[in-house]
Amino acid sequence: MLPYTLIEKKQSGQALNKDEIHFLVDGYVKKTIPEYQMAAFLMAVYFKGMEAEEINAYIDVILNSGKRVSFNDSTTYYADKHSTGGVGDKISLILAPLAMASGKVKVPMISGRGLGHSGGTLDKLESIPGFSTQMSLKDFQKQTDRLGCALIGQTKDLCPADKMLYALRDVTATVRSIPLICGSILSKKIAEGIKGLVLDVKTGNGAFISKYEETKHLAEQLKYFGEAYGLSVRPVISDMNQPLGDKIGNWLEVEESLDVLKGGGPAAVRELSLVLTGQMLAMADPKRAEGDIRKELEKLLDSGAAYDAFLRVSKEQGADIRYLEKTELYDRSKYIIEVKSASEGTISYIDTYQLGLDAIVLGAGRRSLNDTIDPKAGLVVHKHLGDKVEKGEPLITLHSDDKKAVELLSKEIGDRFHVSEDNFTMKGDLYEIL
Amino acid sequence: MLPYTLIEKKQSGQALNKDEIHFLVDGYVKKTIPEYQMAAFLMAVYFKGMEAEEINAYIDVILNSGKRVSFNDSTTYYADKHSTGGVGDKISLILAPLAMASGKVKVPMISGRGLGHSGGTLDKLESIPGFSTQMSLKDFQKQTDRLGCALIGQTKDLCPADKMLYALRDVTATVRSIPLICGSILSKKIAEGIKGLVLDVKTGNGAFISKYEETKHLAEQLKYFGEAYGLSVRPVISDMNQPLGDKIGNWLEVEESLDVLKGGGPAAVRELSLVLTGQMLAMADPKRAEGDIRKELEKLLDSGAAYDAFLRVSKEQGADIRYLEKTELYDRSKYIIEVKSASEGTISYIDTYQLGLDAIVLGAGRRSLNDTIDPKAGLVVHKHLGDKVEKGEPLITLHSDDKKAVELLSKEIGDRFHVSEDNFTMKGDLYEIL
Repeated sequence: MLPYTLIEKKQSGQALNKDEIHFLVDGYVKKTIPEYQMAAFLMAVYFKGMEAEEINAYIDVILNSGKRVSFNDSTTYYADKHSTGGVGDKISLILAPLAMASGKVKVPMISGRGLGHSGGTLDKLESIPGFSTQMSLKDFQKQTDRLGCALIGQTKDLCPADKMLYALRDVTATVRSIPLICGSILSKKIAEGIKGLVLDVKTGNGAFISKYEETKHLAEQLKYFGEAYGLSVRPVISDMNQPLGDKIGNWLEVEESLDVLKGGGPAAVRELSLVLTGQMLAMADPKRAEGDIRKELEKLLDSGAAYDAFLRVSKEQGADIRYLEKTELYDRSKYIIEVKSASEGTISYIDTYQLGLDAIVLGAGRRSLNDTIDPKAGLVVHKHLGDKVEKGEPLITLHSDDKKAVELLSKEIGDRFHVSEDNFTMKGDLYEIL
Repeated sequence: MLPYTLIEKKQSGQALNKDEIHFLVDGYVKKTIPEYQMAAFLMAVYFKGMEAEEINAYIDVILNSGKRVSFNDSTTYYADKHSTGGVGDKISLILAPLAMASGKVKVPMISGRGLGHSGGTLDKLESIPGFSTQMSLKDFQKQTDRLGCALIGQTKDLCPADKMLYALRDVTATVRSIPLICGSILSKKIAEGIKGLVLDVKTGNGAFISKYEETKHLAEQLKYFGEAYGLSVRPVISDMNQPLGDKIGNWLEVEESLDVLKGGGPAAVRELSLVLTGQMLAMADPKRAEGDIRKELEKLLDSGAAYDAFLRVSKEQGADIRYLEKTELYDRSKYIIEVKSASEGTISYIDTYQLGLDAIVLGAGRRSLNDTIDPKAGLVVHKHLGDKVEKGEPLITLHSDDKKAVELLSKEIGDRFHVSEDNFTMKGDLYEIL
């Protein structure tokens, strides 16, 4: 078998068989197939797609490149949530303790770092002083069983093939490929040993896949291939045509999550947290009325029980929870600059993708692999789609220690918001459960 | 400028501007852009093509990555021929001394090695004992002026970007891309300092681009972009649905070339040599009647003048010309095995591409970059398209020192020939001058 022939086969639109997919991915992991041949193959997949059998084989080879977690307690419903990535998406920080607080499910959550214009749960957790996201798979399993939740990053021994493929896709513009996304997400989630997976599949100008029809196709594919591996999958398509909530940036998003966990916070963040956690609990107990689940979850937020659960997990993972209890102890950015609207009317469009990149420029994300993150840096959005705005009213606030970045962005970031004289009505729902 | 953004731009079908093309190719040459990003870009070009401005910029940056030859004598017509590659295509070995013998043009010819299923002029020349294809660009220029012809391989200082890009395309299945072929061929030919270029653009099942319409498009593009650089370009589309002539393999092809240079050899090889050399002389002197040119060239072959010219160039470049004068001095393969027809009828199809690969298996080409070539190895074809064949009559003879390869191929090589009960008529002409 020659890598060249397999690249050519995919390039001409033919399906590879299981052995061929295994040969390519295993060869890439063992470095017998060079990065440039894998890059050419991934780009051919981007253009020509994969058939169902190929996607199964692709998930399989990534899954079997490392270890798998396996929980012994068959009476417990282990579940996780995954988001395809957006701007201001801090739902995992709320959902995990909220689900844990319900006692109905246990959440072994393995998260990733920021990617492209999109933030990562791991970077947000690590903005909490002392919070450690590294532990062995054994300890991860133990903590999940003992506490009901553990929040970690991908370990070396879990789907190492995905780690290598992901790094290559990230630099070769081959992230936005449905079969490759399926392989990457599902292999890791299957390896977690969970029973149920709630998927938050983002659509709109701040999502990796912006068109609704493509998003829906991705959601269906993720459900189909996940279920082929015995996972229960509940995809929810949610709107990413504006940042989720007000705050973008690691510590800023922790703050907003704490607000929601204590019964407050922006309505959109509370609502999506209730919907996604509700779906998780509904999967665990399909006979239970969804209205009951919702009431229970609202109570867990409003009573502070979900907040307590978050403190418990954070403490267990080494966090200095004084910062969570008293967020004003946390350092603030040197430059906190309000940018005002140059016109009046209704917010009719927000360039969400660009706001994600702007947050990175301010220090909230990495521009290259070895860049460091400024946990304080980010953006606070004051106006959302459909909001009225007066001339001179604040649109957004920049938080950064980087004077140059602040100077640059304070001039142009106002342009991410389109202000229209007409009234604005949202097209369609903010989310859709498939 | 980020390589990632440029890959994404091409992936979405947008044209890159001149600066962006230069940034990518220069970066790749200087190794600031890694092979995997270049591979992803090349695959995106394979799928999305390039616009005219992009192809110009691509030729330009490859051309300017190294030195250029520049002849001082403005009264001389310097010309070269290039073939897009086929099986049994030894025309350069005949055309160069034939054109030289005419005294009407001078031929500074820089050739390549075997590629994919196709042989290379350089490997054929090097099968002649002592023949050296390495010299400095200065000596190359001097010999061309003094003798009327020089036959060398690509030097380090001539289009180094092409050398690197070519090696990458060769292993990432991105050779068959019209803009990339244009960039590769034309940059090198422009760098040779010639005025006129005859192009033998192969079509059919043994060519890199098999479909006639695509071949014609390639021929037109090569003419268009070559002429944009002040080169006169005369493309000839020629048939590659069967090996050209009888012999495939390096020394075997030298032998057949000597036959043609002495007025004999297979009619198809003689004919295409006369056509292509004729076009070259017609470009040098457009007022001259083509019939006169043809008569002159026939005479140069039949009188032995072209043969003498080949001996002169070979001697000048270190060859032991006793082997050319007395080819029976040359070693023969250990195994020379005739394969016979299993049925009777008319040859209606020859899998030319596969015969090219078969010759490599016998030792006539490289299977990997560091493989060595057996100059004696190859194939002799006894039947061509439209020929009648009896059961048991020889179809092809294998020449090889590799017992295993001979055993394997002697069983299956007969299948490359389809024998039909119907009469066979060639579709269209064997060549077409554009």
